[in-house]
Amino acid sequence: MADQALFLLLHNEMVTGVYKSADQGQVENGRCITKLENMAFRVGQGLIERFTKDTATFKDELETMKFICKDFWTTVFKKQIDNLRTNHQGIYVLQDNTFPLLPQMSAGKQYLDHAPKYLAFTCGVIRGGLSNLGIKSLLTAEVSAMPAGKFQVMIQKM
Amino acid sequence: MADQALFLLLHNEMVTGVYKSADQGQVENGRCITKLENMAFRVGQGLIERFTKDTATFKDELETMKFICKDFWTTVFKKQIDNLRTNHQGIYVLQDNTFPLLPQMSAGKQYLDHAPKYLAFTCGVIRGGLSNLGIKSLLTAEVSAMPAGKFQVMIQKM
Repeated sequence: MADQALFLLLHNEMVTGVYKSADQGQVENGRCITKLENMAFRVGQGLIERFTKDTATFKDELETMKFICKDFWTTVFKKQIDNLRTNHQGIYVLQDNTFPLLPQMSAGKQYLDHAPKYLAFTCGVIRGGLSNLGIKSLLTAEVSAMPAGKFQVMIQKM
Repeated sequence: MADQALFLLLHNEMVTGVYKSADQGQVENGRCITKLENMAFRVGQGLIERFTKDTATFKDELETMKFICKDFWTTVFKKQIDNLRTNHQGIYVLQDNTFPLLPQMSAGKQYLDHAPKYLAFTCGVIRGGLSNLGIKSLLTAEVSAMPAGKFQVMIQKM
């Protein structure tokens, strides 16, 4: 509980800090998202390094994704992902019905515009984690109703 | 273990991020330290809020400091402080012999100049925590030999 609070507070300061040091405007918003994603990418890489050093390699892509949804997600968010779907052609959709980085905000639609900055870290951390497991990916995220978050992972074939 | 890794990685990105967005120079270094301290101050406040909502109030200043050295320190660093000394006149010295935010660096003297930026967060988090417990304080930190960190808390009488 207290651990989770530390992470949530740090994440919040990180988002606020990145946005504070930037100017206003749509271009800047994009840059902030990229900056947050890049920071998170390195965090994801670091976590996987510590996390998998005693783990056997995964037998396939689906195994790896399950690991991300279960063990990795639990480390970061103290819960598993609620739903994982795939088209078996390299697209995975991860659905978290009570995404911990969102619920401080109102469930009303008026705050949906602010959601992307609270999803950037998670996109980066997954991409970084997967990258260190040898999987190159593209991430997109969306919130259609708070506090549910949906992350789409597109595996890039190398 | 994994929780600790997440915190250490986030802290590192925070320090790097703040320094990256600043110019070079001594003045800027001071500003970065202040920025990190302010971020940490709010984290400390937030932690104490969640942490003490079911706790009885502390009977005196020394009790509060013991709580900071034990419970609070354990939440953030997964260990207690190694040594707490006081002159019983409002000065407390907290010594951590293996301070977790430092040991990635070499024990050599050539890196001592870089130590302050890795202590700023901790100063802020303690100051923020104490502040929400009704104690105004001034914090200074020093590293004389890696990876030991020493934090001096001066209580400001109100």
